Amino acid sequence: MFPRPPAEPGMPFEEIDTPALLIDLDAFESNLATLAAAAKQAGVRLRPHAKTHKSPIIARKQMDLGAVGQCCQKVGEAEILVEAGIEDVLVSNEVWGRRKLDRLAGLARHAKIAVCVDHAQNIADISAAALRADTEIGVLVEIDVGAGRCGVTSPEAALTLAQAVEAAEGIRFRGLQAYHGSAQHKRSQQEREAAIGGSAEITKATVEKLSEAGIDCEIVGGAGTGTFAIEAGSGIWNELQAGSYIFMDADYAKNRAADGQPISQFQHALFVIVTCMSQPAPNKLVVDAGHKALGNDSGFPDVWGIDGATYSRPSDEHGAIDLGHSGHAANVGDKLLLVPGHCDPTVNLHNWYVGVRGMHSDNARVETVWPVAARGAVF
Amino acid sequence: MFPRPPAEPGMPFEEIDTPALLIDLDAFESNLATLAAAAKQAGVRLRPHAKTHKSPIIARKQMDLGAVGQCCQKVGEAEILVEAGIEDVLVSNEVWGRRKLDRLAGLARHAKIAVCVDHAQNIADISAAALRADTEIGVLVEIDVGAGRCGVTSPEAALTLAQAVEAAEGIRFRGLQAYHGSAQHKRSQQEREAAIGGSAEITKATVEKLSEAGIDCEIVGGAGTGTFAIEAGSGIWNELQAGSYIFMDADYAKNRAADGQPISQFQHALFVIVTCMSQPAPNKLVVDAGHKALGNDSGFPDVWGIDGATYSRPSDEHGAIDLGHSGHAANVGDKLLLVPGHCDPTVNLHNWYVGVRGMHSDNARVETVWPVAARGAVF
Repeated sequence: MFPRPPAEPGMPFEEIDTPALLIDLDAFESNLATLAAAAKQAGVRLRPHAKTHKSPIIARKQMDLGAVGQCCQKVGEAEILVEAGIEDVLVSNEVWGRRKLDRLAGLARHAKIAVCVDHAQNIADISAAALRADTEIGVLVEIDVGAGRCGVTSPEAALTLAQAVEAAEGIRFRGLQAYHGSAQHKRSQQEREAAIGGSAEITKATVEKLSEAGIDCEIVGGAGTGTFAIEAGSGIWNELQAGSYIFMDADYAKNRAADGQPISQFQHALFVIVTCMSQPAPNKLVVDAGHKALGNDSGFPDVWGIDGATYSRPSDEHGAIDLGHSGHAANVGDKLLLVPGHCDPTVNLHNWYVGVRGMHSDNARVETVWPVAARGAVF
Repeated sequence: MFPRPPAEPGMPFEEIDTPALLIDLDAFESNLATLAAAAKQAGVRLRPHAKTHKSPIIARKQMDLGAVGQCCQKVGEAEILVEAGIEDVLVSNEVWGRRKLDRLAGLARHAKIAVCVDHAQNIADISAAALRADTEIGVLVEIDVGAGRCGVTSPEAALTLAQAVEAAEGIRFRGLQAYHGSAQHKRSQQEREAAIGGSAEITKATVEKLSEAGIDCEIVGGAGTGTFAIEAGSGIWNELQAGSYIFMDADYAKNRAADGQPISQFQHALFVIVTCMSQPAPNKLVVDAGHKALGNDSGFPDVWGIDGATYSRPSDEHGAIDLGHSGHAANVGDKLLLVPGHCDPTVNLHNWYVGVRGMHSDNARVETVWPVAARGAVF
């Protein structure tokens, strides 16, 4: 009973059923190439985050352009990736619980698997799971570099855990997880540089502390779409974990470059196409997408191509469009494009991507339909 | 590649993988029986809303207790219900677009199907789809009874549309859709009575307007979990569309009865079980559920059973628990129960329900695992 796709390859753009999650394939491919080139130029590895796309075919496209593997947040996501043939997966998150660690160890018999830790008991648990499965699991010690969420808070504590990993059987110390999530969304370049500057100090001190004790970090991982250039140029991080760059969203579009202008490096490649299902007034429309089709946790979507139009008042399956003074004459039954406020949770609401070629041209057509394979893989 | 379930029948409660969506089966069955009895006593029909549960097995349980059919919001939900054997489905929403209407007409050849309209062009489109499929689709005219979303805004406009339905081929006028969504969540009984009092005036005037023109309303539908007793006792509505009553959520728990006390009619039957994956301080925990496991649009979840503990700062897959002055000693690796802020979008994030018997007892065990079959059926 897997729900049907909203479109089929070859279908004209106008026939896509709504609401549906669209990829502008031209913009998406440009974004893929842009970050791959930037990482190569900076001399750092790229391990993009599959929490954004949840799709093995997108993972494969990233690896074809030089990515060394994938990050994900959940064992369930790692299962989908490994079972689709991805051979190097880092769960960039802590994983607790015997059943879940046994699943992780099962994967490690078929792919190169790593996971993050910030607690000695968890290290013992992962070691035990690896031994039960007669396999090896890689381990990164997570350090809190400013996010105030998971991770140890001193170089000494990181060293203690790294030594515990080195002493345990079935697991191998591979490095540090040093990701500052909220820094990605600071609006000015100055704020982002200040935040990652702080992260860099902590990370550098930790790498040196471990080095003094004879422990090398194969991976110093972190960075996201908002700050990757800072980490890449720091000489400290050697692996970038950006995810959103492939799609962008309305929140990231609010970030500004050093000159105060919008960042033009990546293009909006993810859209939700909606239909106007009611029209309470000439410049007000009700569309068929609310909380169940749009991730609104970082703000409402932008209305694409209609200056001054806004989306608001989402309920489960409705949203209100105010055309304002745009002068745009939309009617009930018309379709509109929205740029999601936050790409990751939006993708997670849909079962299918509709890949469109020539999206904003007169010849837009459906080229491909891909499952959001790890949608809902929450544990 | 449908993700695995987080538990199996017979499994002890402690082994459920997290985050997972749990049903307290005892509370759920009590809720089912409570509303079924209330509708029967009031002499009105019950057509519960499947947008809440998205599950044919739950639909069947509601109908076994006397419900006449199901409501849903999307054609995709109706497909899942009809294909699982539910024979009477109302899409309590406007549906635009030829492909979608052809799907609706296809269903109408295999079940009793109705849909809502608030626009003459849509009536013509539904009629055309029904004729293409050589079938009949029932039609309700939606009236705006205070929600300010979809629906016509005068009895005259409703009559015009009802007459258009009666004049069209392939479709049959069945009544009025008169639902006031935001009234469900007004906190005091007085506020809810005032809101539905206004809805009642509009609905009564519309029913009378149609009656004067010789058009009877087989269905006068509306009401939700917050106000159903008001509509049921009004003598105007004859079909209740409540959905959330089966589960309840932290938002509905804020509603108060006429005496200012919490409403005890329905019990919390829906939980998200989480694991503490990091512990930044003795009374602060990071749990493994954020926006991808919890619908936070109506407020954050309550922490079950720990007075004074709060959930906050959700990111995609993390949330922060502050134990405050609860005196509760939780540790990393422990599991906690959360009561979701909003049940419908929370259910829609998960692929599986884990049905637990004796949930808050020492003998809690997994009795059943049900797919959230229409999860993501957004179009």
